[in-house]
Amino acid sequence: MDILREDTIAAIATPFGTGGTGKIRISGPEAYEIGDKIFRSVQEGKKIKDAETYTAHYGFIYDPVEEKKIDEVVAIMMRKPRSFTGENVLEFDCHGGMTPLRAVLELVLASGARLAEPGEFSQRAFLNGRIDLAQAEAIIDIINSKTEKSLDIAVEQLSGKLSQRVDEIKEIAVEVLAHLEAAIDYPEDEIEGFSPEKLDDKFNYIKEEIEKLLLSSRQGKIYKEGLKTVIVGKPNVGKSSLLNYFLEEKRAIVTDIPGTTRDVIEEYVNLKGIPLKIIDTAGIRETADKVEKIGVERTRKSAEKADLVLFMLDISQGLTEEDLQIYKLIKDKPVIVIVNKTDLPAQEDRDKIEQEFKEHNLLWISLLEEKGLEELRQKILNEILDEELSGDDNVIITKSRHKNALLKAKKAVERVIVSRETSMPYDFLTIDLKDCLNALGEITGETVADDIIDRIFSDFCLGK
Amino acid sequence: MDILREDTIAAIATPFGTGGTGKIRISGPEAYEIGDKIFRSVQEGKKIKDAETYTAHYGFIYDPVEEKKIDEVVAIMMRKPRSFTGENVLEFDCHGGMTPLRAVLELVLASGARLAEPGEFSQRAFLNGRIDLAQAEAIIDIINSKTEKSLDIAVEQLSGKLSQRVDEIKEIAVEVLAHLEAAIDYPEDEIEGFSPEKLDDKFNYIKEEIEKLLLSSRQGKIYKEGLKTVIVGKPNVGKSSLLNYFLEEKRAIVTDIPGTTRDVIEEYVNLKGIPLKIIDTAGIRETADKVEKIGVERTRKSAEKADLVLFMLDISQGLTEEDLQIYKLIKDKPVIVIVNKTDLPAQEDRDKIEQEFKEHNLLWISLLEEKGLEELRQKILNEILDEELSGDDNVIITKSRHKNALLKAKKAVERVIVSRETSMPYDFLTIDLKDCLNALGEITGETVADDIIDRIFSDFCLGK
Repeated sequence: MDILREDTIAAIATPFGTGGTGKIRISGPEAYEIGDKIFRSVQEGKKIKDAETYTAHYGFIYDPVEEKKIDEVVAIMMRKPRSFTGENVLEFDCHGGMTPLRAVLELVLASGARLAEPGEFSQRAFLNGRIDLAQAEAIIDIINSKTEKSLDIAVEQLSGKLSQRVDEIKEIAVEVLAHLEAAIDYPEDEIEGFSPEKLDDKFNYIKEEIEKLLLSSRQGKIYKEGLKTVIVGKPNVGKSSLLNYFLEEKRAIVTDIPGTTRDVIEEYVNLKGIPLKIIDTAGIRETADKVEKIGVERTRKSAEKADLVLFMLDISQGLTEEDLQIYKLIKDKPVIVIVNKTDLPAQEDRDKIEQEFKEHNLLWISLLEEKGLEELRQKILNEILDEELSGDDNVIITKSRHKNALLKAKKAVERVIVSRETSMPYDFLTIDLKDCLNALGEITGETVADDIIDRIFSDFCLGK
Repeated sequence: MDILREDTIAAIATPFGTGGTGKIRISGPEAYEIGDKIFRSVQEGKKIKDAETYTAHYGFIYDPVEEKKIDEVVAIMMRKPRSFTGENVLEFDCHGGMTPLRAVLELVLASGARLAEPGEFSQRAFLNGRIDLAQAEAIIDIINSKTEKSLDIAVEQLSGKLSQRVDEIKEIAVEVLAHLEAAIDYPEDEIEGFSPEKLDDKFNYIKEEIEKLLLSSRQGKIYKEGLKTVIVGKPNVGKSSLLNYFLEEKRAIVTDIPGTTRDVIEEYVNLKGIPLKIIDTAGIRETADKVEKIGVERTRKSAEKADLVLFMLDISQGLTEEDLQIYKLIKDKPVIVIVNKTDLPAQEDRDKIEQEFKEHNLLWISLLEEKGLEELRQKILNEILDEELSGDDNVIITKSRHKNALLKAKKAVERVIVSRETSMPYDFLTIDLKDCLNALGEITGETVADDIIDRIFSDFCLGK
């Protein structure tokens, strides 16, 4: 791994596309020598390699072979170890089109740098000890965060909050382990600060702390990946209108930034910080065939994948056979029954409908008159957030890798507890306690195999 | 216009999308005050407003109301007048996802900045006299450049080469104008350095210089917008293979940058610096109906829009009625006739085909054996580049706005020449000469109306 870090890497660090500016990032021992080959400061003779750390320099990128200007840039330099990667870093802020960025990158590569792999800058930051693995993973979560709440969680993780909590647990485990090993090696001596009676308290404490973190993982998954929500119902009950209502809210949020492509966040609605991924079953082509008309197969499939089903009825049409057919497909899922068109004369009395769907959350709305919609948002939130998942604590497990490590750690400490109950010798305890420590160490990266580290970073985007 | 520049503007300056890093750019008198409200350096107490110009600072963006970290950033500051806009500029390099960038931008706006209009940063650079209008326009050409050659031309324009050439012409016109006005005001006196005999030389020189620039505009358009090239031919002559041959070359060029979305540059092929925009007529659905099979209507339409038609034949099928039908549709365009499949036994002798298409460039290729392809590339280039359009001079007119201004200037100077021929009084000359100067001034922006300036900058992308 160390061999890799002796070379200098470079990549385009900004998203591909057209924008005002774009960045070429260079990191490694030769960053400044490479930069000086192609950068000419407007202050004649000024060299990047002689510059102070954390300074910016205005000038031009020159092709030294063809002796021509390639772009006007600002060069920013940050010396090791106080840089993103912990190495010498040089950045060229170029004009933001693909051609100038590619032209500058090609010159950088021709001058001695190697094209970086996706995630390789972050990987170097980790390998150089600037950040731990959980912090590195937070970077990609920040970039991909879908709401401010998911951003919050990732920023806290980047700040080291998760690592800190894990380290606190590990510290206690290490302390107990040291005492146990001393007691094994010197069975006759009294170990200072150690009493067998206190052991169980410590093991239980470790288990409880791990469980607390694990509890947050359902919430973490929702914040990170969003809640898959399906709107189902027969044609004309108002599915499209409900979707539009959600999308319009979202549109209002992004409108102040022109140029946002709808593709990127199209299906995500921000519901008080929860990314609601709405899967639309509206717009199914309606045919003469009644079964096709309801879109049985499509509804079933969508519902299968859903975390939450919004089942819509139309009170002006009453409760029909089609409604009940759809209901059969989805009733085992978490369902909110939404009765729309309360502005129109009802074909059915409310009691009957409430009786029919009494197992579920049910509410009456009018999309036309915008009635009941705030209540609907609240009901969706209630459906998602169990009471134990609230709280201000932003240490939330968002990665299945972390969750799996915690589950392993929990199992190991449970084995310790069982060994205590069956009065097994201390050696048994230490083996399982070490397993627990190793599992916890996977989160921060102390005890992770190289190939797993490579895999983690390969999920990163280029230039990070 | 000046009122506008008293406020501080901000925008996301990098392309939208997911990348390693993204930039928020802030410009205006309050840039540092706004930045200090939300930026906390890791060096406690360090303020942006006290920093040296051209320095970078590592820290975090804090929401001062909710007292929470929003993102980890590097802040870069450049004091007026040595900055992109000529104003105080502050940039936050954030993590490159939409959510962190939006969150930071929202804080910047909440702290007193106004969201910038597209192109407003460049517009300020122009209004503050840092660059002229032609240079400002070069910025957007750099960003949108499709090949390195078009990048070259734009970089030269940004460096002021075009403005310099225009200024040289203007200087002569101003000199003559001054002499003429002196001669009008003091008809009795001898004006130093002025002789009526030299006038015609000067007017002719001005006209020739303008004409030289105008001559470059066809080439400029091709470099900037690419050459619309249509491949036509009956089914199975090898249209798709030819397209793939071009695309593969292109793919080889972009392969070293993973993540490039094919959408962006899909149809552009870089032919020695010329962006070839290939319009594919391959893949037309083939039906039993012969007319439909040839895709007459589609071929006609594509050919109409094309700058160049590549008309393909299949020597192994011989020259068929279909070929001739297609030929009728396109023969008035610049055409290169390509006879493919020379690797197969010929159904027709070469002489007959050469006779039939003797008005056009014609060449024999085998896509299968990759024969004749380099010659094809050269033929395409020859078709594009007339001899007078070559040369190393990178001052090339790429904007129709510049072309129109030059045409106006040319007409004005031609009127001057006519007036001289008809011995009109000097007053007539000065009026037309002023028109000529005004037209030239439009290129660099001295004599352009505000609303036109607004329109020019509104074509820019956000954050530039």
